[in-house]
Amino acid sequence: MSAASAPITTRRAIGIVAGGGAIVGELIAALSAAGQPHAVAAIKGEADAILPHLQGDHIQSFDWGEIGRILSFFKKHQCEDLVLLGRVSKRPDFRSILGDPGTLVRIPKIVAAMRGGDDSLLKRVIDLLEAEGFRVVGIQDVAPDFLLNECHHGNMKITPSIRADIAKGKAVLADLGRHDIGQALVIHDGRIWAVEGAEGTDAMIARIRALRAEQRITKRPVTGILIKAAKIGQDRRVDLPAIGPETIRMMAEAGLAGLVVQSGAVLVAERAETLRRVSQCGLFLLSEGDFHHD
Amino acid sequence: MSAASAPITTRRAIGIVAGGGAIVGELIAALSAAGQPHAVAAIKGEADAILPHLQGDHIQSFDWGEIGRILSFFKKHQCEDLVLLGRVSKRPDFRSILGDPGTLVRIPKIVAAMRGGDDSLLKRVIDLLEAEGFRVVGIQDVAPDFLLNECHHGNMKITPSIRADIAKGKAVLADLGRHDIGQALVIHDGRIWAVEGAEGTDAMIARIRALRAEQRITKRPVTGILIKAAKIGQDRRVDLPAIGPETIRMMAEAGLAGLVVQSGAVLVAERAETLRRVSQCGLFLLSEGDFHHD
Repeated sequence: MSAASAPITTRRAIGIVAGGGAIVGELIAALSAAGQPHAVAAIKGEADAILPHLQGDHIQSFDWGEIGRILSFFKKHQCEDLVLLGRVSKRPDFRSILGDPGTLVRIPKIVAAMRGGDDSLLKRVIDLLEAEGFRVVGIQDVAPDFLLNECHHGNMKITPSIRADIAKGKAVLADLGRHDIGQALVIHDGRIWAVEGAEGTDAMIARIRALRAEQRITKRPVTGILIKAAKIGQDRRVDLPAIGPETIRMMAEAGLAGLVVQSGAVLVAERAETLRRVSQCGLFLLSEGDFHHD
Repeated sequence: MSAASAPITTRRAIGIVAGGGAIVGELIAALSAAGQPHAVAAIKGEADAILPHLQGDHIQSFDWGEIGRILSFFKKHQCEDLVLLGRVSKRPDFRSILGDPGTLVRIPKIVAAMRGGDDSLLKRVIDLLEAEGFRVVGIQDVAPDFLLNECHHGNMKITPSIRADIAKGKAVLADLGRHDIGQALVIHDGRIWAVEGAEGTDAMIARIRALRAEQRITKRPVTGILIKAAKIGQDRRVDLPAIGPETIRMMAEAGLAGLVVQSGAVLVAERAETLRRVSQCGLFLLSEGDFHHD
């Protein structure tokens, strides 16, 4: 994992608010390997899987509602920069907000945040943290190797037909982005097979597999390109699209040919394993610019 | 079923190439009730469900590949206008194209048609039929009551927030339509929950139910508007979007609030039952214009 050698921007402790997913553990491993002090507030019910592997008083688990205790924890560890990382599968429910004095005084702000849409929720959480004197940064600011820059992996040839699909897919994502949707789609021969909505990329890939099984798609595998970008106007500190080995495994199962991601805007978990699978499955992975989002 | 009283445009026999779905049986019932002569070529594996209910030498089932026999059948029944109606779940495979002499002479045209995308396939089938001296018309030309015109069913109030979602949804569909995708989407509070791809409207609605079950959507039911239109540039003779009682049942199960369709461009199967369910489930159904497609 080359992220261990990533340039770390600060020698002050970095605070991590940890949701679910392997990438949280990877960041912690990378920071530890680089000797970068850090403190981790692991959200119960989200980051549980990483806790058994981590020890020490710089790692602690919290309920969603314990805002006061979380902020005190980061202050005790002298964190100034915070990274919000990992999947949050559920919004906090109001019951979990009771009982923490530090939360109670912030309830008006929290209620206002929870009333908004998803993007506004994150924006308001950031505002709340910054009003407390923290600076919210992205994982790319503390471990830039987690982002994919321009690259081309795998042996599959990028034919003119694939190149045309990529151009059309980028144009569609740009149009969708104007409406705050569409981080990803699947295209083949100019036809859009799927557009990502609230279900996420994995579920969209699973849909392609189902369409093939039902013979709603009769093109032979390996066809179909997955194109993935950051949303226009998205706050890249807290909401970068991500891929990992599971993405590649599911793509291969769905009979897709390759993956095009926006360079510098997509996180890759378990980079070495992800790239190994791209080659092993005979797919391609392009990371490039020329997205209208750039 | 009021379609029985629909104006029928011709006293010559109408030929029907029948795929799957209840609407085929309904059209046949409406034509029979109106004393309109007709002949039905039921495609094996697609229209099987309607065959046991129908008798007579004006109804016959054919394999996809029996183009020559299908055309002779329509000529024998003196059909000049043909309606292509019903769901086609599978493209014909090449094996089914052997054995019919009338098909063999048309193989170059058929191969060309099958090489194209879905829209081009239909267009080329129409070209092939018209080159044989038939005129391809839409169901709306022979039974206009199958289309929904401007209407508002159900008791749910159209709030300003719902009105704003409808406006945004129409704008998104217009943008998607420029790329030949997006007949339907689901929106709530300005956020697009789902965009229809190759999976069809039913599968998209099922996705909303799954998102609620997994708490990826935590808005209480009844929220979320389904908006459905014809694709821009779509040939409305052969590819109109359709709704029916099952659409409403699935929407209710998914916790959706209502359905907005493009007036004059969406087929409704079992109209009376569909509208009854809209009221029974506490939903609304709006059929209106102001789509950018108009």
